[in-house]
Formats: sequence, C-alpha cells, structure tokens
Amino acid sequence: MTGASGTLVTIEDIRAAAERIAGRVVRTPLVPYPVAEPGRPLWFKPESLQPIGAFKLRGAFNAILQRLDDARAHGVVTHSSGNHAQAVAWVARELDLQATIVIPDAAPALKVDRVRQLGAEVVIVAPEDRDTRAFELAAEHGYVMIPPYDDAAIVAGQGTIGLEIAADLASLAGVLVPVSGGGLIGGIATAVKALSPGTRVIGVEPELAADAAESFRTGQRVSWTPEQTYRTIADGLRTTSVGEIPWRQIQKYVDDVITVSEDEIRDGVRRLAAEARLVAEPSGAVPFAAYLHHASELGIEGNVVAVVSGGNLAMDTLARIIAPAAPGTAG
Amino acid sequence: MTGASGTLVTIEDIRAAAERIAGRVVRTPLVPYPVAEPGRPLWFKPESLQPIGAFKLRGAFNAILQRLDDARAHGVVTHSSGNHAQAVAWVARELDLQATIVIPDAAPALKVDRVRQLGAEVVIVAPEDRDTRAFELAAEHGYVMIPPYDDAAIVAGQGTIGLEIAADLASLAGVLVPVSGGGLIGGIATAVKALSPGTRVIGVEPELAADAAESFRTGQRVSWTPEQTYRTIADGLRTTSVGEIPWRQIQKYVDDVITVSEDEIRDGVRRLAAEARLVAEPSGAVPFAAYLHHASELGIEGNVVAVVSGGNLAMDTLARIIAPAAPGTAG
Repeated sequence: MTGASGTLVTIEDIRAAAERIAGRVVRTPLVPYPVAEPGRPLWFKPESLQPIGAFKLRGAFNAILQRLDDARAHGVVTHSSGNHAQAVAWVARELDLQATIVIPDAAPALKVDRVRQLGAEVVIVAPEDRDTRAFELAAEHGYVMIPPYDDAAIVAGQGTIGLEIAADLASLAGVLVPVSGGGLIGGIATAVKALSPGTRVIGVEPELAADAAESFRTGQRVSWTPEQTYRTIADGLRTTSVGEIPWRQIQKYVDDVITVSEDEIRDGVRRLAAEARLVAEPSGAVPFAAYLHHASELGIEGNVVAVVSGGNLAMDTLARIIAPAAPGTAG
Repeated sequence: MTGASGTLVTIEDIRAAAERIAGRVVRTPLVPYPVAEPGRPLWFKPESLQPIGAFKLRGAFNAILQRLDDARAHGVVTHSSGNHAQAVAWVARELDLQATIVIPDAAPALKVDRVRQLGAEVVIVAPEDRDTRAFELAAEHGYVMIPPYDDAAIVAGQGTIGLEIAADLASLAGVLVPVSGGGLIGGIATAVKALSPGTRVIGVEPELAADAAESFRTGQRVSWTPEQTYRTIADGLRTTSVGEIPWRQIQKYVDDVITVSEDEIRDGVRRLAAEARLVAEPSGAVPFAAYLHHASELGIEGNVVAVVSGGNLAMDTLARIIAPAAPGTAG
C-alpha cells in the first residue's frame, strides 16, 4: 500500500487515485466568481456538486477500491460527523458492500438521515468516543476500517481535486482549502505543489476550531477539545486535531493556515448562493470567507481558487443565513 | 450568415458556435441527482453556473462574435426581461463594446441592477413596448440588434448545451428544457436529435404562461398576453410567444411541450437546493418540476437530463421557497 508509516503521499499516488475513481465521481468544473476583486480573479471548485454533496466521495472510493477484496468479504466501518459517513455509505451501496457508520451525537440530523437512507447501519456515540468505538467494531467483526482522513489512500483520493485544479487553470497564484482532519488540504497541497510549485496553498479554519492554525504556527500538532471545536457553525470542521498522515503533508506543502469568524463564514454562504448560485454548507464557505475578508493576510496576487468542500445543510438554516433580515428568520 | 429566412439552424451551425465560444463560457458538467427514481436516473445541466447565472451567455457570445466588426463600430442593443440582458451586458464588457438594454418595467430589480453593474445603459419600458423600443434605438443610433431568441446565431449558441449533453451521456432517453422564446429548446433539440435521434426532447412551461404548449398542440404559433404570462413566478418564461426561427426548430425536433403548476415549480426550486445543492431561479426549476410531478406524461424510461437554465433570484425569495414553514417567512 502507498504511504506506509513515515513516507509521504506522492503525486504518483494521487494520479493512481484519479485513474481509480474516474467516472465514479463528478469531474467538477472551475466556476468563475463574477464579481471578483480586480487583480484577484476567483474560481470555485464546487465539490458540493458530488452526489453526496461533498468531496469526501473521492477519498472513500479510492480507499475502498484499494481494499476491495477485504471490504467485500467483511464489510467496512468508519466514524464521521457527516460527509465522510455519507461518502462511505454511498460507496458501499454502489459496490454492494455492508457498511457500519459511527456518528457523534452532535452531528446534524440531516446528515444522519442521509446515511441511513443509503442503507448503512448507524451507531450514535458521544463525540469523544467516535474513533475508539469504530476501532472496537472493526476488531469485533473484522470490518475494514475506512478512516475519515488519517489514511494515505484517503489523502490521495482528496488530492485528485488538486490535479483537476492545476489542469484547468494554467496560471494559479493561490488555492484556499478548508482544514478539519487535514485529508483534503494534505492531498490538494501535494498535487498542486508538484504541478505548480509557485502556487500558494493556504488552509482556512474557523477561529472557533483553529487547532490546525495553532499547530501550523507552533510546528507542533495540537488538539483542541470537542467543547471548543463544537462552537463553530462549520460542523464539518469540528475535528479536534489534524491527523498524523495529513500533518506530514501539511508541514511539507502548505504555506499558511489562517482563520475566519463565524460572521464571515455566514457571509460566505450567503454570497455563494446569491452571486455564484452554489449552495454551500458553512464548512464549504470558509475558504471563500478568507478571500472576501482576509485579502492582505492571504497575500495572493493573481488567480485564486477557493474549494467549496460541501453543500449539506438544512434548508431552514440556509434560509436564515441568506435572508437574515426577513421577519421571523433572524438568529 | 447561417439560418437565413426559412432555412433551419443545423448541427454544423451549432458546432461552429461551440468553437466560437469555447473558453468564454463555463463547460458545465452533468450533475447527478442522488435521489432519482428507479429506472429514471436524472442529471442536471447547471447553466446557472455561468458567470451571469444563466445559459444566455452562450447565444449572446455567439451572436456578437459573428457580428463583431459592426458591434465594435456601432455598439449593440437588445430587449430582455433579465438574463439575456445580463448576457449581452457581460459580453459587451468582455469585448469592450457599448451596450444598450431595453428592459420591461416588471423585470426583477435584481436583474436590472446587475445589468447596470456590468456597465450597460438601461432603458426601462412597458412590457408590450420592449421590442419596438429596441428596434427604434437600433434604427436611430445604428446599434447592432442582438435579439433574445428569434435569431439563428442565438439558437445555435444555446444549442451548444445539447452538444455537451450528448457528449457527456452515452445513453440518453430524454432531455427536459424550459420554453420561453424558444431559443434554448430550439437549439438543444437540433443538437440532440442530430447526435442521438432516439432521445425524446420535451419542452416544459408554467401552466400560467403556456403559449408554447398551446402552439405545439394546435400546430399554430399563438401569442398570450403579458397580463396572462406575467402571472407565473417563473419570470424568465413570461415571453408571450415563441419566436419564428425557434418555432421552426421546435416543430421539426421537439417531441412534446408539457406544463407544470406554480407549486410544482416551487418544489423544484426547493429540492434543487436541498438535494442537488444548486440555486435555481423558478424558470430554471421548471424542467425538474416536470420530472418530479409528471413522470407518466413525460413517458421517458432511462437516462434523463433536466436543463437548469438559470439561478438569478433574490435571496429573500429563495428563503421563502426553501423554508416555507419558518415563522414569518410564509407567503
């Protein structure tokens, strides 16, 4: 298997992943932001348009296809606050595998319902028990573990987004990526730096779940508590620390990790809907929020890509965010 | 020029248009509908992701690039309730041309504002005066007229959507397209029938603006009054009759034109946002409404594509549609 202990995920691993998952995920286009600021043209990479509404399908397909014989024989298990859960459930349904998903009890009901609708078995636990319970189930039943981010095959799968961005935009000054467990940015940064070494790859996190920003600043991979990270509206970015495998990729390939406020995230969701006609969940709007509100901190001149990582949110939440002034919808 | 009086727009005209506009419009992907009904897999063609939020950019680029010398020398003029207006204004800005846009006074303020922001001159008139006033301005100032739909170059430009659909989906049972002036469905039907003759191409209209359905049923191109067509929430489909050039294409290549109710249109908007993460304006959700609520009337078994023609709507309108039960947002 690629990316064994201590070795880095490579551009070759990502190219192999792209071949493996071709035709199984949407080849998302770059969507231009029509009211970009002069000197900073912006494109969105709308992974929200994947059939489960998030990029997670790429890593899940790559990881499960790499372990297909075992997965067929024993089934798969994972733990996730939502989008990775849907991804594993989707892949299991497509490949006709048995799947068990451990979900923390604070996950949005919408995401839990969708996992059940895809036919996976759901086990609800307290946030701090999510990975231990999944590993227990794997040990007990022989399920193949498909981790949400701390896994070389997952990182390589998410990295296919970086391949596509570099293929679609010749002159690329910067790429903005949300950071949670780090699988997405770890993969994208690896691909982008291999193909376009001068491009700045910048991670973006909510201020209220800024463990990766702190880790990046101090050079030490730190953990925050669930009590801290669960404060943000960006429910996909509440992971309490970056994974070990993604962390190695981040240290080598990422240029900076910056943070945005909750209001800036809401503004990003609203303007993605109004100005780019994309439904983004708060986590998916975090990079765009950095483009809108942290231009000087980003220090990018030229073409920018903001990854819109997902679009799974309840419609009443979206309505409150996009039309806050409508009577009765505030808060 | 292609498509002179009485001759049909051809697949060659559409191929030439595709070459002419390549790189100037978004090559939109087919986005799978994840909760499609068994036996009727559905994909969206999200033209809402064009930088002006609608397919109209294709026809406008093709028409203006075909007449570029005149357009440069004299400027361009058009009349439109919204999306074509934005398209011409966008193309004029990109190609550094002077543009004048005649807009009926019932057009949404949002669409009018966007035309002004693109630097075009706006002339507001009563709905019934829109085309006469535009022709007067053309005669008076020598502006090149870029009609919204009754023009071979416009039809060929919109037809590039059909080329892309046929290229992306090998086995194509049906394509659902909104009908207003007919440029979109006229172009798409021409391309699809040339490349995949067995595919059913079906137009969809609001019941409240069903002039094309009546024309199709009777074989006579009829007009409705603005008082009738302006009742529908689908503000992009209020044109009172299909254009002469599109009508010839429709008679030859379209299999049926059916209608949907206002509630069905709202349901389409809501489910596009919730289930496919696409912001669609009511007009853009009309074909999906037919898929959801008129399956037997469509009579399609196999792969279906619903064209999402645009995504320009006010955020308070979107909020009311997607979360009708939220306190204070009903109506």
